[in-house]
Amino acid sequence: MSGAAPLFGGIEAGGTKFVLTVSHDHAQPLATHTIATTSPEATLAAAADWLGRHAPLSALGIATFGPADLDLRSPTWGRITATPKPGWSDCDMAGYFAAQFGVPIGFDTDVNAAALAEYAADDSRPDVLAYITVGTGVGGGLVVNGKTVHGAAHPEMGHIYPRRATDDQQFPGICPFHGDCLEGLASGPAIAARWGAELSALAADHAAHESVAGYLAQLCHSLAAINAAQVIVLGGGVMQTPGLLQRIVQQAERLDGAYLPGRRPQSIG
Amino acid sequence: MSGAAPLFGGIEAGGTKFVLTVSHDHAQPLATHTIATTSPEATLAAAADWLGRHAPLSALGIATFGPADLDLRSPTWGRITATPKPGWSDCDMAGYFAAQFGVPIGFDTDVNAAALAEYAADDSRPDVLAYITVGTGVGGGLVVNGKTVHGAAHPEMGHIYPRRATDDQQFPGICPFHGDCLEGLASGPAIAARWGAELSALAADHAAHESVAGYLAQLCHSLAAINAAQVIVLGGGVMQTPGLLQRIVQQAERLDGAYLPGRRPQSIG
Repeated sequence: MSGAAPLFGGIEAGGTKFVLTVSHDHAQPLATHTIATTSPEATLAAAADWLGRHAPLSALGIATFGPADLDLRSPTWGRITATPKPGWSDCDMAGYFAAQFGVPIGFDTDVNAAALAEYAADDSRPDVLAYITVGTGVGGGLVVNGKTVHGAAHPEMGHIYPRRATDDQQFPGICPFHGDCLEGLASGPAIAARWGAELSALAADHAAHESVAGYLAQLCHSLAAINAAQVIVLGGGVMQTPGLLQRIVQQAERLDGAYLPGRRPQSIG
Repeated sequence: MSGAAPLFGGIEAGGTKFVLTVSHDHAQPLATHTIATTSPEATLAAAADWLGRHAPLSALGIATFGPADLDLRSPTWGRITATPKPGWSDCDMAGYFAAQFGVPIGFDTDVNAAALAEYAADDSRPDVLAYITVGTGVGGGLVVNGKTVHGAAHPEMGHIYPRRATDDQQFPGICPFHGDCLEGLASGPAIAARWGAELSALAADHAAHESVAGYLAQLCHSLAAINAAQVIVLGGGVMQTPGLLQRIVQQAERLDGAYLPGRRPQSIG
């Protein structure tokens, strides 16, 4: 370990666990540590304790579950906003660590941070890269011209309305706000509600596979049409289902019909 | 007129006309001139002739119909790409004017340029602003963090697939590539094909109004979900229909159900 090189701390703040890391170079973590997510007080203190053993840090990056206030002009920048997670609403996550360590804090959503990491690892430096996670929910992060997109809070890609499949018109979807938005149709809990099992537990010729792929392909197509996205990376638990990525790529290609002009081949992977 | 101040030329290159301008300040054109779009040779020469009378220019901005190559790293940057418009495929528009005037050329799509102009006029400086035109086609431009988005060529927002209305399931749409994509359902020619008249010629209680508004509202909702767009500006001939903008705003609000967290109220107008 080089004592002179700047040392960076990292936190991935999730609903069930916090993953902590320190590194000189983001591609090579020196150490990682995982703690359970409990109350904000206990969780943040445990995170600060572990990171503090590696101090002095030069800066700290936080990738958090949402919703979160990412607006640097806002008096509540760096906080979790209204969340059903008990105790976490208005938690001043960035402020806590700024006070603990007195270093610059980067603060973004977990999916924006994942998009930025994919961008940093992509030597083609695409103008527009999206990261989509399909798990307990469906979320997305977006990097445009090298920076994550915040806009009015942050993207919530899971809440677009995909066109329903002809043979899947009745299921009302499970999103408490939108019913059959993408998250209401293609998240892990939605798949369990619609098809009675996890996608990976259903036979490869079960209709659920093409159905779920079709809904996710519509987000990929919309990203290509609205943002001219060059690279779309799909992750999350549901995406571990064998064959799902290939089905999505095929359906997205069918949706577009090779129209969108001047696009370089999109890698969805 | 101040002879010492830098003089900027502007071209809006459209399918039926080119609008030319010179100005010291984009908010106050010194002169504008319109020429008909004919062959590339005649049209570009006539544009250069008029602009040349105001030379020396300091720089020239071109806002063009598409598809166009906007990639500064591309050997064919500045060209119209494959277009059904006779003679215009591969026309080196930026190169022609660079050779004529020897000045820096800005080159973007007409809708991206409109989005940039709306951004420049918006003192709130939104992170994410979209401009949508609804006319012969449906197109969109996007400004993120102060710059237009190119990505894989440029956005083609008219080609998302909105969910079909319950009472509008049969019309196949008119997009030659996608059938019932947004442009295939809500562009001027699509409205004429589906409803037998221009939208503005149909009575205010005709079902066409809510139908068209519903399709356009889905693009607004997708922009809010995918990009967290704060400001969406709608223009073009179809948008001149009285009441259409209000219908779109109402339907977009209904689609979202006030879920999207931390969003400032969106101005769609």
